Amino acid sequence: MTALPARPVPSLPALVYEALVRRELAADLGDAGDLTTDAIVPATATATGRVVARCAGRVCGLEVALASFRLAAGGAGWARVETTAADGDDVEAGAVLATLTGPARALLSAERTALNFLGHLSGIATATRDLVRRVAAAGPARLVCTRKTTPGLRALEKYAVRVGGGANHRFGLYDAVLIKDNHRAIAGGVAPAVAAARAALGHLVKLEVEVDTLEELDEALDAGADVVLLDNMPIPDLERAVARCRGRAVSEASGGITAESIVAVAATGVEVISVGWITHSAPALDVGLDVETS
Amino acid sequence: MTALPARPVPSLPALVYEALVRRELAADLGDAGDLTTDAIVPATATATGRVVARCAGRVCGLEVALASFRLAAGGAGWARVETTAADGDDVEAGAVLATLTGPARALLSAERTALNFLGHLSGIATATRDLVRRVAAAGPARLVCTRKTTPGLRALEKYAVRVGGGANHRFGLYDAVLIKDNHRAIAGGVAPAVAAARAALGHLVKLEVEVDTLEELDEALDAGADVVLLDNMPIPDLERAVARCRGRAVSEASGGITAESIVAVAATGVEVISVGWITHSAPALDVGLDVETS
Amino acid sequence: MTALPARPVPSLPALVYEALVRRELAADLGDAGDLTTDAIVPATATATGRVVARCAGRVCGLEVALASFRLAAGGAGWARVETTAADGDDVEAGAVLATLTGPARALLSAERTALNFLGHLSGIATATRDLVRRVAAAGPARLVCTRKTTPGLRALEKYAVRVGGGANHRFGLYDAVLIKDNHRAIAGGVAPAVAAARAALGHLVKLEVEVDTLEELDEALDAGADVVLLDNMPIPDLERAVARCRGRAVSEASGGITAESIVAVAATGVEVISVGWITHSAPALDVGLDVETS
Amino acid sequence: MTALPARPVPSLPALVYEALVRRELAADLGDAGDLTTDAIVPATATATGRVVARCAGRVCGLEVALASFRLAAGGAGWARVETTAADGDDVEAGAVLATLTGPARALLSAERTALNFLGHLSGIATATRDLVRRVAAAGPARLVCTRKTTPGLRALEKYAVRVGGGANHRFGLYDAVLIKDNHRAIAGGVAPAVAAARAALGHLVKLEVEVDTLEELDEALDAGADVVLLDNMPIPDLERAVARCRGRAVSEASGGITAESIVAVAATGVEVISVGWITHSAPALDVGLDVETS
Amino acid sequence: MTALPARPVPSLPALVYEALVRRELAADLGDAGDLTTDAIVPATATATGRVVARCAGRVCGLEVALASFRLAAGGAGWARVETTAADGDDVEAGAVLATLTGPARALLSAERTALNFLGHLSGIATATRDLVRRVAAAGPARLVCTRKTTPGLRALEKYAVRVGGGANHRFGLYDAVLIKDNHRAIAGGVAPAVAAARAALGHLVKLEVEVDTLEELDEALDAGADVVLLDNMPIPDLERAVARCRGRAVSEASGGITAESIVAVAATGVEVISVGWITHSAPALDVGLDVETS
Amino acid sequence: MTALPARPVPSLPALVYEALVRRELAADLGDAGDLTTDAIVPATATATGRVVARCAGRVCGLEVALASFRLAAGGAGWARVETTAADGDDVEAGAVLATLTGPARALLSAERTALNFLGHLSGIATATRDLVRRVAAAGPARLVCTRKTTPGLRALEKYAVRVGGGANHRFGLYDAVLIKDNHRAIAGGVAPAVAAARAALGHLVKLEVEVDTLEELDEALDAGADVVLLDNMPIPDLERAVARCRGRAVSEASGGITAESIVAVAATGVEVISVGWITHSAPALDVGLDVETS
Repeated sequence: MTALPARPVPSLPALVYEALVRRELAADLGDAGDLTTDAIVPATATATGRVVARCAGRVCGLEVALASFRLAAGGAGWARVETTAADGDDVEAGAVLATLTGPARALLSAERTALNFLGHLSGIATATRDLVRRVAAAGPARLVCTRKTTPGLRALEKYAVRVGGGANHRFGLYDAVLIKDNHRAIAGGVAPAVAAARAALGHLVKLEVEVDTLEELDEALDAGADVVLLDNMPIPDLERAVARCRGRAVSEASGGITAESIVAVAATGVEVISVGWITHSAPALDVGLDVETS
Repeated sequence: MTALPARPVPSLPALVYEALVRRELAADLGDAGDLTTDAIVPATATATGRVVARCAGRVCGLEVALASFRLAAGGAGWARVETTAADGDDVEAGAVLATLTGPARALLSAERTALNFLGHLSGIATATRDLVRRVAAAGPARLVCTRKTTPGLRALEKYAVRVGGGANHRFGLYDAVLIKDNHRAIAGGVAPAVAAARAALGHLVKLEVEVDTLEELDEALDAGADVVLLDNMPIPDLERAVARCRGRAVSEASGGITAESIVAVAATGVEVISVGWITHSAPALDVGLDVETS
Repeated sequence: MTALPARPVPSLPALVYEALVRRELAADLGDAGDLTTDAIVPATATATGRVVARCAGRVCGLEVALASFRLAAGGAGWARVETTAADGDDVEAGAVLATLTGPARALLSAERTALNFLGHLSGIATATRDLVRRVAAAGPARLVCTRKTTPGLRALEKYAVRVGGGANHRFGLYDAVLIKDNHRAIAGGVAPAVAAARAALGHLVKLEVEVDTLEELDEALDAGADVVLLDNMPIPDLERAVARCRGRAVSEASGGITAESIVAVAATGVEVISVGWITHSAPALDVGLDVETS
Repeated sequence: MTALPARPVPSLPALVYEALVRRELAADLGDAGDLTTDAIVPATATATGRVVARCAGRVCGLEVALASFRLAAGGAGWARVETTAADGDDVEAGAVLATLTGPARALLSAERTALNFLGHLSGIATATRDLVRRVAAAGPARLVCTRKTTPGLRALEKYAVRVGGGANHRFGLYDAVLIKDNHRAIAGGVAPAVAAARAALGHLVKLEVEVDTLEELDEALDAGADVVLLDNMPIPDLERAVARCRGRAVSEASGGITAESIVAVAATGVEVISVGWITHSAPALDVGLDVETS
Repeated sequence: MTALPARPVPSLPALVYEALVRRELAADLGDAGDLTTDAIVPATATATGRVVARCAGRVCGLEVALASFRLAAGGAGWARVETTAADGDDVEAGAVLATLTGPARALLSAERTALNFLGHLSGIATATRDLVRRVAAAGPARLVCTRKTTPGLRALEKYAVRVGGGANHRFGLYDAVLIKDNHRAIAGGVAPAVAAARAALGHLVKLEVEVDTLEELDEALDAGADVVLLDNMPIPDLERAVARCRGRAVSEASGGITAESIVAVAATGVEVISVGWITHSAPALDVGLDVETS
Repeated sequence: MTALPARPVPSLPALVYEALVRRELAADLGDAGDLTTDAIVPATATATGRVVARCAGRVCGLEVALASFRLAAGGAGWARVETTAADGDDVEAGAVLATLTGPARALLSAERTALNFLGHLSGIATATRDLVRRVAAAGPARLVCTRKTTPGLRALEKYAVRVGGGANHRFGLYDAVLIKDNHRAIAGGVAPAVAAARAALGHLVKLEVEVDTLEELDEALDAGADVVLLDNMPIPDLERAVARCRGRAVSEASGGITAESIVAVAATGVEVISVGWITHSAPALDVGLDVETS
């Protein structure tokens, strides 16, 4: 595998996130609305808010955050929305990402919803970016996420991984085959499992087989797997596995890979490294809203 | 504040989580279903799965995980479901939390959904428990969460905090008043802000005021706040603030409190400590499913 | 309790009611649409409609009514929308509340939906206003509603109570504690019930205890209730109860209070009076739409 | 029109109300659940609840109320559910309508939801029954409701009218044609309006024309209306109108008809009398739950 | 029945179809979005698309198709949308129906959704039109559809029938009575079935009885059916049936009527002919999108 | 490509179709319910229904149809449900597919919903089966469907194609890349389009390129397409294209292929043939319900 071509800017259609934002705003308002703001802030008051990164990281979810303010304001709308960063930008602590001027009530009521999305997604993008950089220094591998995502947020989290410079593993049970040990056991071996899957699948579905040992790897390669998932292999075995895969199947390393161990894994020349914690355990990026009332 | 009475077992009605589980299962199945399992595993195959903690922690979300398997199986159902742990239990690595025997397809197809809920919620409960223990050794304070939750999961995450031994701050903008600096600025001071809120509120809503300095604290106490949020105060100021609150308002410390700094905060005698990262940044607990085909 | 500060204008976010309006319009149109209007009124016809109060009362739900017309018109929109009243206004019979000029089909098809919302909410606001006036003449009490609301409309009905000059009791089971006789019986008394609740609750939740007798009241006050609900007490008992509550807990009178009996109740000096029928049994205000085709 | 045949027992499919009940329970529980009950009542406690009519009236919505308890209990279920009344029964104050024994938590948490449905629908059924009785003593007319229903509850309220002995007018804009004055004005008269409607409609749709005067009535009859709505006519005109309709169209009296004026209206021999307030303004029937903990 | 008056232009409110379009777009995008377009087409690229009929037919669903493009583009919107046809137009192969200029990504991503709606509905309108023409040459009958529609699309398909020149039978079980053989058997004959239905129904519901023989027809007419469905009758019987219905009930022929047999059926003078296959089996009209990138 | 292995029985999880069935039943019942059945059939009446194929074909959707009856019956349920056929069976006219005994009302009210699903899906399965047989006699090709599906029914229709013996092309824009002429034009050729896509995609996504000529085919093969879609190629070109693809990419023929032309296409040895009309234009299979009342 040669150097990767330049990655396009990832995209996330509004149709995917607007319903989530609307639901989240409605849940935060509840039946009683924003008790504090409604009691204290006049309906006609205006204010300016600056979405700010409180620490350095990679921005992700800015459009989602802005949609929170937009949907909270309803028909009234914003006098000014200026974005000074975009998803994928690496920013320093203190960087202003966007500035909005408009109804003070909507600004204050939507603040937490906007920041919860932005902080969560930027946290994932930042963690991914950091791993991608470590991998890039060591080998040609592409970093990918898994299906270990937060319930309800898979589309957004997989997008954040792309924004972080990673790529996506399958999105669900529906878009690729991954034969694990239990499937293999029920089918009576790798070969019959692969055969059964090939028979059932459309011609546009890729087939991956999870293997624990080099013997299993050989079975998977002989059975014609498109991709093999090398699960928890010691580095020397991984090196041998990568060599055997060359020209026959894409090699993917997986299983408990940490920021520390990933460099050695990447140095084996494996083509893909999948890491679960960038989606299920990356800490949120600290983001805030500075408000100026006028 | 004297020693807390024994906390009741927290509860989470099925009405709150079943729709989430159903949506998550459907999203993982997509329109094509579980390509791998459907192709390889006969509809009549049965298997036994054991939900296992791969590392030590506090269990949370076991009923949600079991609902995943139950809803995936549909009418067919499970021959046996045995639970050997419950939400709130502290378990060691390797502990078996539940065992299910039934349709192999449903077991494999629902595995990831079940574990994603269980790992996420147990991670929050475990992080909360750890902080609660540190706090308990240092002072009388109760640990609470914030509204910095993961979009779509607030009800479940707040429940996980209770399971971890913490308590809940307000759930949304609708169930308590929290007057922040921006509200204060717009109202022209703490006193008019509190007066405006009191005028608008029902008699069952508590009112909290965020303060940065001892001067602001005095204003809030004079205005009759039920609770004061002492934001990012240095320890000596915090001690003075706690003393001034005694008998007048509940004192709450907040702002960038970490596992390291929390002991000193608790030692001030403050009554409540709120921490955002237990909901937005706690790493997932590693949980897995061991399957035995029969 | 001194004279209440001026109440702010209540607010109701569009996010709370737009989904209801959309669902209601869709339900009235069904799969076949407005058979009459579609057959008779050309798509290009325009008309002017005046939303009119057919009898005197307090206006509530005008924005909801206008949203009905707006959502029914879709992209086409209205050439003119002029509002000549606002929620909270007291109007005479014949008063024009709003005037719309635009697509005749949308005007006729949305008429019933708009008026059903407006009439229902104005009826509640008017009934509340009338009671509030009677109370104000007799004592310092604040009038509040209950959870006896019409299924599906709690957020809107509680808003109508605020528009009528009342305040809200808790919105659901989730935002305040109310210990009733059955809870007390299961807990084995008021004191253990209050202790159990305090142990489980966050520091921002108020706790109310329902009592039937002065003995129970003393128990509740000793247990530290924030609010006591004095249920169906004879006036003399109520007077004594109010005296005992002073400085210790907020007193609330409840139970079968009518427009006739409320003056005597208010005269006891009780701080809060809760009345169920303003939400579950207030008659709708008669409102109509005068259409002028052009 | 001869004496009406015996009315069948009205029915309401569970598919129509279960989603409403589930939504209402979830709204009352919110994200935090039943704070009071969860803190005080052990998960294993059982209790017996009796649904009781606190005053005399006609029962309606008992199945909906029971569904509230059933859905709140989830899988656990009820040890005993005994119904001692059914929709359509006329009961005295104090009558026990149903008795449930099972989980105390579910009983207490679902109480308000169950009673809100039952009280609202029984109120409509009772008001309808009372009018039907007055009408029956005076003439052959059938009492019907209108589209002036509470938002979100039309299906249930129209069912309550049937339970009260009334019949239903059209359910929406989609199931019958009603040509009002505005349609007539736009079409340029009754005849062209009826012609346009007939041309567009399927052969299973009935066509009603609203008329204010006897001249308009003649136009409507000549145009071939199936039904004529005699709007706000003085009694002598109404008598003449009814006579002219005989054998040509069904006659319907409408417009501000009260419990007082309805007898005179019925005495004209009109075939149908439509009354809006039985759905939009009938007071709720007082119903309660007596709980016995065990 | 004399010559039908000119049919009005059928209408379909956006409220009825927008949710369907949004759901369909979201389903096609899934969680990953349009992989191809997002990777290849820059977010800023613009293009012009022409919606084209690939073969001759009657246009139906053009607004639905345009809504697909509109909703896919979100806030950005289209620089130009020009419609050169409208629902109900008969077009030749190659006819341009609409032209859009705007974001290339939205154009390509929404193409299939737009065309699937347009092709399906135009197919139904075209099939209906063809039958209507055959019928018109032979007799006065009106062509109507049935409830044999595609799940989820009844409102749209019934609209397409109107666009094709047909009329609608009942829309569901809720808007008209149709007594079939099973109802008759349970009721113990046509007369008691009709009586039971009349007793239960509002005065705005029409009542149809399905009959297989002339004897049954007489029963139905005597029982006072508004419409009789003459099911699968041989032509000579149908002629006799039509004669007997005259002046007593509307006659409807139904049952396996094909494009071939319909002329003879229409020639009997029957008033209504219902055909199921125009909704459940009409082939889609071939429509396409010609894209020009700029 | 050698002979295909035996295809597994396709599966369709209940989670995918139950919401559709529930929505469809509710839409048919509307707010008024089944007017006819509710008026005539006693709530306690029981009946036996036999789901019958009225003409020969391949069964598909039987579980969906049975779910219609099951969901309509609610808690009451069926005394007996016997299935005498299964999805994928080829049956003769008159074959009984399933027999249900239970509540007569549910049987009659759910009939149309059940049959609409069953007829639609069996029609697609039957059309697919017929084409698959023609193809099998001529060459090794696998028959696949397209994204030209009926709005709202893609998951079910793709399942019906599998039941008919076909396989699935991609399910949406999200699970495979298909580079069409417009993408190519915007990217400036096949090579840069493929490079852009490869750079953006995960390693489990297949990439197909649509080509019109042999020159374009060479470009696509050189660019490393996994699959090439040979669009509307004359048979001689198709033969050459298939030869060039061998060992380099999967070949797929597409574009206006009919039951007549498919044999010649298959005879070219092409590996995949995609046909749109099996999903968008297959006529429904005639299925019915024979009811016996008891």
